Amino acid sequence: MNWPRKDLIGIQDLSKEEIITILEMTTSFKEISKRDIKKVPTLRGKTVVLLFYEPSTRTRLSFEIAAKRLSADTTSLSASGSSFSKGETIMDAALNVMAMAPDCIVIRYPYAGIPQKLARELPCSIINAGDGYHEHPTQALLDMYSMQERFGTIEGLRVVIVGDIFHSRVARSNVYGLRKMGAHVSIVAPKTLLPPGIETWGVDIATDFDSVIPEADVIMMLRVQKERLNQQFFSDEREYSFFYGLNKHRVDMMNSDAAIMHPGPMNRGVEITHDAADSARSLILNQVENGVAVRMTLLYLSLGGSLHVD
Amino acid sequence: MNWPRKDLIGIQDLSKEEIITILEMTTSFKEISKRDIKKVPTLRGKTVVLLFYEPSTRTRLSFEIAAKRLSADTTSLSASGSSFSKGETIMDAALNVMAMAPDCIVIRYPYAGIPQKLARELPCSIINAGDGYHEHPTQALLDMYSMQERFGTIEGLRVVIVGDIFHSRVARSNVYGLRKMGAHVSIVAPKTLLPPGIETWGVDIATDFDSVIPEADVIMMLRVQKERLNQQFFSDEREYSFFYGLNKHRVDMMNSDAAIMHPGPMNRGVEITHDAADSARSLILNQVENGVAVRMTLLYLSLGGSLHVD
Amino acid sequence: MNWPRKDLIGIQDLSKEEIITILEMTTSFKEISKRDIKKVPTLRGKTVVLLFYEPSTRTRLSFEIAAKRLSADTTSLSASGSSFSKGETIMDAALNVMAMAPDCIVIRYPYAGIPQKLARELPCSIINAGDGYHEHPTQALLDMYSMQERFGTIEGLRVVIVGDIFHSRVARSNVYGLRKMGAHVSIVAPKTLLPPGIETWGVDIATDFDSVIPEADVIMMLRVQKERLNQQFFSDEREYSFFYGLNKHRVDMMNSDAAIMHPGPMNRGVEITHDAADSARSLILNQVENGVAVRMTLLYLSLGGSLHVD
Repeated sequence: MNWPRKDLIGIQDLSKEEIITILEMTTSFKEISKRDIKKVPTLRGKTVVLLFYEPSTRTRLSFEIAAKRLSADTTSLSASGSSFSKGETIMDAALNVMAMAPDCIVIRYPYAGIPQKLARELPCSIINAGDGYHEHPTQALLDMYSMQERFGTIEGLRVVIVGDIFHSRVARSNVYGLRKMGAHVSIVAPKTLLPPGIETWGVDIATDFDSVIPEADVIMMLRVQKERLNQQFFSDEREYSFFYGLNKHRVDMMNSDAAIMHPGPMNRGVEITHDAADSARSLILNQVENGVAVRMTLLYLSLGGSLHVD
Repeated sequence: MNWPRKDLIGIQDLSKEEIITILEMTTSFKEISKRDIKKVPTLRGKTVVLLFYEPSTRTRLSFEIAAKRLSADTTSLSASGSSFSKGETIMDAALNVMAMAPDCIVIRYPYAGIPQKLARELPCSIINAGDGYHEHPTQALLDMYSMQERFGTIEGLRVVIVGDIFHSRVARSNVYGLRKMGAHVSIVAPKTLLPPGIETWGVDIATDFDSVIPEADVIMMLRVQKERLNQQFFSDEREYSFFYGLNKHRVDMMNSDAAIMHPGPMNRGVEITHDAADSARSLILNQVENGVAVRMTLLYLSLGGSLHVD
Repeated sequence: MNWPRKDLIGIQDLSKEEIITILEMTTSFKEISKRDIKKVPTLRGKTVVLLFYEPSTRTRLSFEIAAKRLSADTTSLSASGSSFSKGETIMDAALNVMAMAPDCIVIRYPYAGIPQKLARELPCSIINAGDGYHEHPTQALLDMYSMQERFGTIEGLRVVIVGDIFHSRVARSNVYGLRKMGAHVSIVAPKTLLPPGIETWGVDIATDFDSVIPEADVIMMLRVQKERLNQQFFSDEREYSFFYGLNKHRVDMMNSDAAIMHPGPMNRGVEITHDAADSARSLILNQVENGVAVRMTLLYLSLGGSLHVD
């Protein structure tokens, strides 16, 4: 069996079986980063272009390290300091990059739908590294891998996602994936930060964080975008922390086996305190570690690898 | 016969025979980017420094991909975020880079003459990636390659270059090269955008675009620098488009076999409309594709390769 | 004997024997950059992350070239254009990078002490590329190597360091190293630019530059940070140049065998004139060249190499 997909645009497109395949292969790729020589020749002579129209550290770095450990050549373009700021359309920019014969374009873009459009129009692989409020599929895959690694399975897990659901592509991708994998998802958010149509997502919705804590296996905190504070959404950091922050008091309410997750970067003292971020329950750095392995898997599969690693 | 040049500063320096050699070799290098493993070991262990004092996407990316496909190590420096902004002179910066033993410096600089000065003073190869209003030789070589690929020869081609000739290093390099190769060049521009001395360039000059279209084999549109609009040069985008833009009406006036070129990035709706940019006549993406191959050829030749690819 | 240090934080931590070892090995690594194929497989499959929170050209470039010539994979993060600007703490950022399994993090940071903290908390190698006013150890090592190369030994050399000692990590690292190696160090600075506690550094202090010139073997000029001019420290560039600049008159007062050094980037016309910078006494470009070799040595030693190069 070969991997049939040229692209990874969203978790919504993947079947449960495809997610299982990715998670299974990730374990093999994770092992490579523990070797003394952290490099395999799998993608030697392949060109991966990282096209980031939004600032990023961990995602860009994670993809770059993943590609290099597979021996691919990488080159990064960011919106600032490039002619992308000269008024060229994204399609023209992408067609230009395509003309240089990359094997894969990893793209982050501030508006939804562009990765999908590129996937349809370009012959190379497109991997979505986050598009607007739409999806961030590699984040959800590394999150699911981290849960499976911690709990053995995702089936039946009770996952609580807390924060700005409205603006969060991480939340959307996780909801799609977790539900396909049989988890039970609850959303905790101020009403102003719930997206329209959420009643069709198949999740429970709570506004009282404390009420859902004791039953949760995983509490996934979302980053507060500070630029959205003091707008219509909610009043200030202190009020947000009081109602929706994960602090020592709430950590103590958690099930003894439950885990804490956060996609980063964290605003310590806002959505999460030191007690929570640095507790033994935290999977936050496991998420980052697993991100490299998940991205190696996806680069490998998308660039035409078979399902057996050489 | 070995390639006698350490540097590539301008098309003005090259003989017709040298241009022919470059164009011939480009076909071999173009083939590499079509392979499954797009990499040859030719420049393994060589260091190529990309020193860009002006924003750039496609040129920097094209050189970087070209160097990596030849197995050279690359490192990029751009003016922003570097100590180049700390008031160091360009010569001191270049001497510093030279002290780190690069084999080649690819430089883009906002003022004319600096690449030539570096070529004289530094032992490594210098490739001019655009200096002020002077030259952009790799652009002209990829343009000529694209014409030769399309028409079989450059000799006798009737090429019309349209736009801001005054500020265009692309136009200057193309005029030098095309005339050496036996093409007939016409310039179409508002009088305010004709450089002094153009009567010595050996080109025809027209202000009425429509009058030259039917005879042209190639129409090469130049980018409008939007920051120059609404200055003394011409009034506004709409007026510019009306007199000098390539639109459906003008495409329909073209010879059935004629081609459209543009060095990018395009201002769609200003100097070129969708009808023209995306028509079957357009060589615009061929230009970008050929850019990688031309730059592989020049890196190969300048870094001491013989005229036979291993 | 194996190199016992995972990290390089400051010259203050190194013994004289360790400095001697580094300087000895540097000669072998310097030879690699003179080869036709400037690359050895020593660090193949290793990941080096360059984490620069301050603008830099030569130091970042020097480390990057050093790592690539040892076949390590490198990836650069700078503060601008990254989520580091999103309010994440430096420790969280560093822990995130660590989770991606780098073998070495090279860090430049605007405040003192962070590299040391990372070295204690992270299992990978940390190399300090400059932290606040604290240390810049690879600069001092390349300076000492350049002196030893020029004079055969550092023991007994009379080194004069001139300029803004207060804000200079270069001065601190050099004073620590030179004194361990048996040199005699004199400091020349306006009194406003002498740090508190300098009387414990074991150096001579002079405010009259001319008085110490004839006895010096090495005159090391420090860069004037132009943003500090016209503050309380000293009046203006002209006055600074008059009292503390190295100009033709002062070069003529130097011992016939004496050398001029500067860590770069130079402010020509402020702390150093063309006559001094470009004189035959100048070791300034030797310093840059030796910087690559010293950094290759330190990457090699820190990443677990034995004391014999393969």
